[in-house]
Amino acid sequence: MISLADLQRRIEAGELSPDDAIAQSHAAIEAREKDVHAFVRHDKSAKAQASGPLRGIAVGIKDIIDTANMPTEMGSEIYRGWQPRSDAPVVMMLKRAGATIIGKTTTTAFASRDPTPTLNPHNLGHTPGGSSSGSAAAVAAGMLPIATGTQTGGSVIRPAAYCGIAGFKPSYKLLPTIGMKCFSWSLDTVGLFAAGVADVAFATAAISGRDLRVDRATPSAPRIAFARTHIFAEASPDMQNAVEQAAQTLAKAGASVKETALPPILEDAWRAHPVIQWYEAARALAFEYDNRRELIGPFIRDHLAEGASVTHDAYDGARRTVKRARQALADLMSEYDAILTMSAPGAAPHGLGSTGQAIFNRLWTLMGTPCVNVPGLADGTGLPLGVQIVGRFGRDRSALEAALFAERALARSQSRGA
Amino acid sequence: MISLADLQRRIEAGELSPDDAIAQSHAAIEAREKDVHAFVRHDKSAKAQASGPLRGIAVGIKDIIDTANMPTEMGSEIYRGWQPRSDAPVVMMLKRAGATIIGKTTTTAFASRDPTPTLNPHNLGHTPGGSSSGSAAAVAAGMLPIATGTQTGGSVIRPAAYCGIAGFKPSYKLLPTIGMKCFSWSLDTVGLFAAGVADVAFATAAISGRDLRVDRATPSAPRIAFARTHIFAEASPDMQNAVEQAAQTLAKAGASVKETALPPILEDAWRAHPVIQWYEAARALAFEYDNRRELIGPFIRDHLAEGASVTHDAYDGARRTVKRARQALADLMSEYDAILTMSAPGAAPHGLGSTGQAIFNRLWTLMGTPCVNVPGLADGTGLPLGVQIVGRFGRDRSALEAALFAERALARSQSRGA
Repeated sequence: MISLADLQRRIEAGELSPDDAIAQSHAAIEAREKDVHAFVRHDKSAKAQASGPLRGIAVGIKDIIDTANMPTEMGSEIYRGWQPRSDAPVVMMLKRAGATIIGKTTTTAFASRDPTPTLNPHNLGHTPGGSSSGSAAAVAAGMLPIATGTQTGGSVIRPAAYCGIAGFKPSYKLLPTIGMKCFSWSLDTVGLFAAGVADVAFATAAISGRDLRVDRATPSAPRIAFARTHIFAEASPDMQNAVEQAAQTLAKAGASVKETALPPILEDAWRAHPVIQWYEAARALAFEYDNRRELIGPFIRDHLAEGASVTHDAYDGARRTVKRARQALADLMSEYDAILTMSAPGAAPHGLGSTGQAIFNRLWTLMGTPCVNVPGLADGTGLPLGVQIVGRFGRDRSALEAALFAERALARSQSRGA
Repeated sequence: MISLADLQRRIEAGELSPDDAIAQSHAAIEAREKDVHAFVRHDKSAKAQASGPLRGIAVGIKDIIDTANMPTEMGSEIYRGWQPRSDAPVVMMLKRAGATIIGKTTTTAFASRDPTPTLNPHNLGHTPGGSSSGSAAAVAAGMLPIATGTQTGGSVIRPAAYCGIAGFKPSYKLLPTIGMKCFSWSLDTVGLFAAGVADVAFATAAISGRDLRVDRATPSAPRIAFARTHIFAEASPDMQNAVEQAAQTLAKAGASVKETALPPILEDAWRAHPVIQWYEAARALAFEYDNRRELIGPFIRDHLAEGASVTHDAYDGARRTVKRARQALADLMSEYDAILTMSAPGAAPHGLGSTGQAIFNRLWTLMGTPCVNVPGLADGTGLPLGVQIVGRFGRDRSALEAALFAERALARSQSRGA
């Protein structure tokens, strides 16, 4: 993988020019793309900018986010060749920070769950996860130092886990969702992928202008709530074992780790997520559903019909549940810096029939809390397993610090075990 | 003006065909548009649908909301000829309810405050207000029974007041803002214009599928908080007098009316509005600002530069203020059905140099509460004056009922005075 931190150190030191750094990404795409299929479009003419904290850094934009100089096809035939007039704000934030937009990465249609042709770089027989399939795979395959994703259920954290990279879903609305195709206005969140936790933190700091870097000091030991959640048993034995081991490793590294049962209202909120998601999607995709139904993927088409049948009362009730759950979570989190849980039910599923499940993600998307996939663990076959750090709403840097602490503790533990 | 209620009664009774109703709007546009300049585009081929609660009803769409069969130019040269691929969800909701999209109405550039050429139908020497200038003027001129607007500061309620029609800004996110050009993601709200309060209620009910009609029963007497607000003195003497008289009229009609001082945190929130609006606008319009600055209107250009200089701390602090203010308002409103205040500082200003001020609107947009402009009053020169009913968040029907009660009480009072 391309380490953003390493690239920047070399650019800063004058050992590597921004042009050469971008050329490396172009070359890596040429070498790996034919196997991984992470890109919808590679802009071979993309050049480095001369200044900015992300000069020399190539970025892939999920093809559900508008770009003014490349089509934006939403993973759907309906938007074949569709050319927006403007760049989405998050694309502009990247450009303003000096980054180079090098291409558009694959997305499941409308960022839902009908799979793309992208393959998992760790084992081409497996899915990279979704819906931000191309962005996660491109980073994991060493084609790019950073890429953008979006998450409505688990579309940043899950593919990051399956691809063994860091994924960061910031607090709701920390990065603007304008200019991305909306699926659910209460849930859609823009996030980032990079090789490691400090890298996603640096990139998010650079584009947002917020104080989110975690690479300048050793993170202090966090207060961790270890939450198995009510669906723990739905995770694979390997995944269950990995997160248990991670809890022990963090405690040994000096973190305060307490097993914590989540308040029951959070389980209600978990059940409320699909109610809100599909009610809103049925409205957000009304044009496509009424006019181009035959071109909508089968998974999403069936669920849009369900979403249209959700009553206003059910939706309003779900929103009231969310409000209460957010308060209960805020109360719980007053004693913790972060929650430790799993990022996905296990390693990437075999084949391309499914992009996997968002069951360990959707609650946190709904809560609007910052989430980080911490890479570094693997199952017996070498496929990555991800653990998830969930922070407090609006305390994104604390979440990233806790995730960095976890990443380093797990890495030390792995190297001792090896 | 075209009364939606009247049109529907005649269509329902078979006295008027949907085709003839649409033909009436086409003819009215032909007759009045050359004076009022409310339209960017008139789709002369637009035809009636055969079914749906809004069959035979012609609707104008503010030209900041995407339409698949007509360009959407955002009131800006930058989007000259821009043709979206899909209809915005609110357009689809209108179509699904049977309405006919008959044209696109003028908007100030990006729904800010650089004026359009639209004139006030009550006196062509005056502004119709903005930013939803064309929609308000088209309804007031009798060209359309309903039209859509959007409000970030006061862009629905203010032009409704200036044009002497009903304007309804529902609770935040009751109507989706997807497919409208974003100015401020925390504030942008889609609303509707029609001749009277029952008409906007019927239309909103028809498109949202929610129980919002108020035309089937006499509204019960509401509990009204009469709030002069801290900027009362900035309103014209006529306007001050009109809202004082309205408070008395409502009390005489049986409403409980109590003079109420708003909690001081609401004044803080009022000051926080521009901080949030311009911070977000500087990001939402980043592409246009960086790439087409010479084509952005002078008012918005200067303010975008200011917005870019708002610190994250100032923005985050403003959001915390909003959260506290919403709670304080909810507490206050537990004893009331609605707040009575004014819709604008006075009648429509002379000339087209300004679309007027949003100082009596922006607090309520920020609070996300439903707001209704109640028409029926006028100053000595015959220009309309609007009073505003502000309801509780999520209690849109109660707000509409209170507004209908006020509309009827004011009408009775006017006819007695005449």
